[in-house]
Amino acid sequence: MMNADREKIIYLDHAATSWPKPNSVIEAVQHAMLHDAANPGRGSHRMAVRASRVLFDTRKQLAKLFRVKNPNDIAFAGNTTGALNMAIKGYIKEGDHVVATGIEHNSVRRPLEFLKQSLGIKVTYVEADEQGNITVDQVRDAIIPQTTLVIVSHSSNLLGTIVPLAEIGELTRQRGVKLLVDAAQSAGVLEIDVEAMGIDMLAFPGHKGLLGPQGTGGLYIHPELDLVPMLHGGTGSQSEAAEQPHVRPDRYEAGTQNTPGLAGLKAGVEYVLNETVHKIHTKEWALTQQMMEGLSAIEGVRLLGPKLGEQRTGMVSFVAEGVDPSEMSFILDQHYQIAVRAGFHCTPLAHTCAGTMATGAVRASVGYFTTEAEVSALVDAVREIRTQYKI
Amino acid sequence: MMNADREKIIYLDHAATSWPKPNSVIEAVQHAMLHDAANPGRGSHRMAVRASRVLFDTRKQLAKLFRVKNPNDIAFAGNTTGALNMAIKGYIKEGDHVVATGIEHNSVRRPLEFLKQSLGIKVTYVEADEQGNITVDQVRDAIIPQTTLVIVSHSSNLLGTIVPLAEIGELTRQRGVKLLVDAAQSAGVLEIDVEAMGIDMLAFPGHKGLLGPQGTGGLYIHPELDLVPMLHGGTGSQSEAAEQPHVRPDRYEAGTQNTPGLAGLKAGVEYVLNETVHKIHTKEWALTQQMMEGLSAIEGVRLLGPKLGEQRTGMVSFVAEGVDPSEMSFILDQHYQIAVRAGFHCTPLAHTCAGTMATGAVRASVGYFTTEAEVSALVDAVREIRTQYKI
Repeated sequence: MMNADREKIIYLDHAATSWPKPNSVIEAVQHAMLHDAANPGRGSHRMAVRASRVLFDTRKQLAKLFRVKNPNDIAFAGNTTGALNMAIKGYIKEGDHVVATGIEHNSVRRPLEFLKQSLGIKVTYVEADEQGNITVDQVRDAIIPQTTLVIVSHSSNLLGTIVPLAEIGELTRQRGVKLLVDAAQSAGVLEIDVEAMGIDMLAFPGHKGLLGPQGTGGLYIHPELDLVPMLHGGTGSQSEAAEQPHVRPDRYEAGTQNTPGLAGLKAGVEYVLNETVHKIHTKEWALTQQMMEGLSAIEGVRLLGPKLGEQRTGMVSFVAEGVDPSEMSFILDQHYQIAVRAGFHCTPLAHTCAGTMATGAVRASVGYFTTEAEVSALVDAVREIRTQYKI
Repeated sequence: MMNADREKIIYLDHAATSWPKPNSVIEAVQHAMLHDAANPGRGSHRMAVRASRVLFDTRKQLAKLFRVKNPNDIAFAGNTTGALNMAIKGYIKEGDHVVATGIEHNSVRRPLEFLKQSLGIKVTYVEADEQGNITVDQVRDAIIPQTTLVIVSHSSNLLGTIVPLAEIGELTRQRGVKLLVDAAQSAGVLEIDVEAMGIDMLAFPGHKGLLGPQGTGGLYIHPELDLVPMLHGGTGSQSEAAEQPHVRPDRYEAGTQNTPGLAGLKAGVEYVLNETVHKIHTKEWALTQQMMEGLSAIEGVRLLGPKLGEQRTGMVSFVAEGVDPSEMSFILDQHYQIAVRAGFHCTPLAHTCAGTMATGAVRASVGYFTTEAEVSALVDAVREIRTQYKI
């Protein structure tokens, strides 16, 4: 029983989670559960050692992908939100000023708003234009002497817009400010080089572009940074100490890790490394262009985000005049077996830029396994729905 | 490929993580990855709805097991440590006094020590006797007017000792103090009734006695309690709000959940419910008694924890005169294919009670699938090793 037996649906919700996963990912999870799933780092018997090896191998592949020198500078988390909370709450202190952007997900905005309340920090959200663009000059202007951290979403999860990361990294490095990147929509589909791009912390999901199982993700932490750990607890190391050990990755990984999930993530990252990020992005971009051409030819459909021909990650959000996004998504699912996501996508900030805060939008997002035929099916379906609903 | 193909080892490290898992657990993980692993709570298409259903069904089975009225009062976490941190850091405030016990795991001790430093809280650790026992009178004596929380490990992860939970719950209820229980070693093997036992928060692992995959666990939170969420972020609900929503379970579950892992956990809990906690505990207890009888007949072997015939959970820790615990564990693994855990088991507190803080100990822990023959094999191996090493 493998992917061949899957239900036939047209899955265009890859920005939420990728599906299907490569067979190698599903097999790796199963193999780990059967053969390697003792408790990594606890005990020295052969299966515990194998479990530790699974974790280290996963870290090694991730380090290769993100150009991290020391795999132990990557700490695992249950999802990007966990990684972002680890970074934001572990780094920011009372009195700090933080710069973020107008395309942030609630996984950045809500922790920041919480710290505004609890620690009295100050936050400047750099305003994005209607397409979701922000410029390095805007970030420069937002930095003040109290600024300790700049947070940017590498790519908007509503608009697909890509921020000028390398330039921002150069700026923050010059200004002695740390840079935290939310790679929820970019890990595995855009080139990321933490050294070259001056990234101090990189939060990434395991279950989106890296093609691993849900329940995985992580945070790269620059070796010179020391965060207050989000979790205090057992590490299998320095058990006698009352304090969380400083040794990495233990410092940031208390408790039993998700060995089977991380075995799957390793297989997912290997798949990405094999195909190459460049090839994956190129294919996904071509699919978005096909989708944009098709959808924009439908009367009353307005596309959000970057224009045709411009760079974006694999998603196209749109509103269709006279059809509520939730209704559109419901009909696509019920009558066409097409899975998209309507609503606010946990990013009211980006909807505010795009002018869709009142209605929300429909987001169709592609993956590496999406076909041109599936994109055509979506376009045809939206056209039919628009025609039927037109007054 | 299922459990039939597994490597033949004698796995006696169930207190770290249970292995093997029932076939139904492995199948459920795979089924979820193939058919249900859209993003639960994000989007309304059929596969996202199925993913939400997986989560809800898992919650329902857990609620049945722990006698929780409303399944939404259970929040998922990546492991018990995550659940304990959520409870401890989410509940305790500046100026609070907390009572904990001398058998706590580092997953309780380290967060408490952190809060002593960062918030100036005070903690009293009720001293356990050499077998790991604490009494309700000791807890009563430790409560002062500033006490807001009592934390007890239901069962020591070194000694197997079981605390008088119902009596402690009655006491804390009378005194208006909240009770947090660490069920790392008891969930699935001892009866737990949160209502009857007066438990306000219950932290449990998914991957030990509940037989689910690693990367799962959770926290029951009494409906009248409101914790500061550990994670702030996207919930797929009330996306427009800058604050974390109050609706449960969303309030405590930001970010994409581990759908495949939780599908596996559901199968694990169903397995436990089917067999019954009583039957599982009875079998595991009998195995510990067999192990204790065998080991105690070996010259120079000292057993830790409750005496023969007394209640305990499925583990037996011991030291063998003249053989370092790490050496014992290494030889058991290398020469006998027997997996046990040596060292400090993340619980220096319990080692202090037991008088093994200088050396550590060997812990052999059984599961529901452990056989009498496997226990005999351990006893025979320890006898051989002791004989060979005797001077």
